[in-house]
Amino acid sequence: MRSLLLLHSMSSTEPTSNLENAMQLMIQTFHKYSGKEGDRFTLSRGELKELLTEELGNYLGNAQDKDAVDKVMGDLDANNDGEVDFTEFIILVGALTVACNDFFNDKKPEENK
Amino acid sequence: MRSLLLLHSMSSTEPTSNLENAMQLMIQTFHKYSGKEGDRFTLSRGELKELLTEELGNYLGNAQDKDAVDKVMGDLDANNDGEVDFTEFIILVGALTVACNDFFNDKKPEENK
Repeated sequence: MRSLLLLHSMSSTEPTSNLENAMQLMIQTFHKYSGKEGDRFTLSRGELKELLTEELGNYLGNAQDKDAVDKVMGDLDANNDGEVDFTEFIILVGALTVACNDFFNDKKPEENK
Repeated sequence: MRSLLLLHSMSSTEPTSNLENAMQLMIQTFHKYSGKEGDRFTLSRGELKELLTEELGNYLGNAQDKDAVDKVMGDLDANNDGEVDFTEFIILVGALTVACNDFFNDKKPEENK
């Protein structure tokens, strides 16, 4: 995997592909919220709640609900520091995207291995 | 995590957020290539090569190189069936996105835990 991560021409003027656009949108979205208070490289509970409500309102139910935010924070905050870092955020977005893809493929879970 | 995956209003007419847009772009990109030959839910070696070249040309070096494609396929194809499924694809995109974020944050790897 390491050999992949050459990022060899980040300042390229080539037109951006849809996938590169998706990657940039995920990075921009995280920093839009993580920069609001405290450590600007992590999401606090308040920043996470705002992100879930404003960015994933169509996908997630009840992000307004404090218990739901606490549950997501507990699930994501692997190192128990009360903050969600970028890697933990990407794991959430990845899991949601896989769930959406399964939903649209209309495949039963046992067929996805 | 399960409690998150309610996907409660996929057919909502709410405006799409940047993050929802990113998720849709990842799903669309995978299916644009996976549907070309063989199993339409997985990427063959040829489909993976085409995706890497056309969608990640700015990020990855030498995707045109057969050895590089074989290396990526070997790294991603966890179950050794010669095909990359959607979950394996999302793990690649997630890892690249984390690497890009680190690059832009100008943080040393040991600071990211």
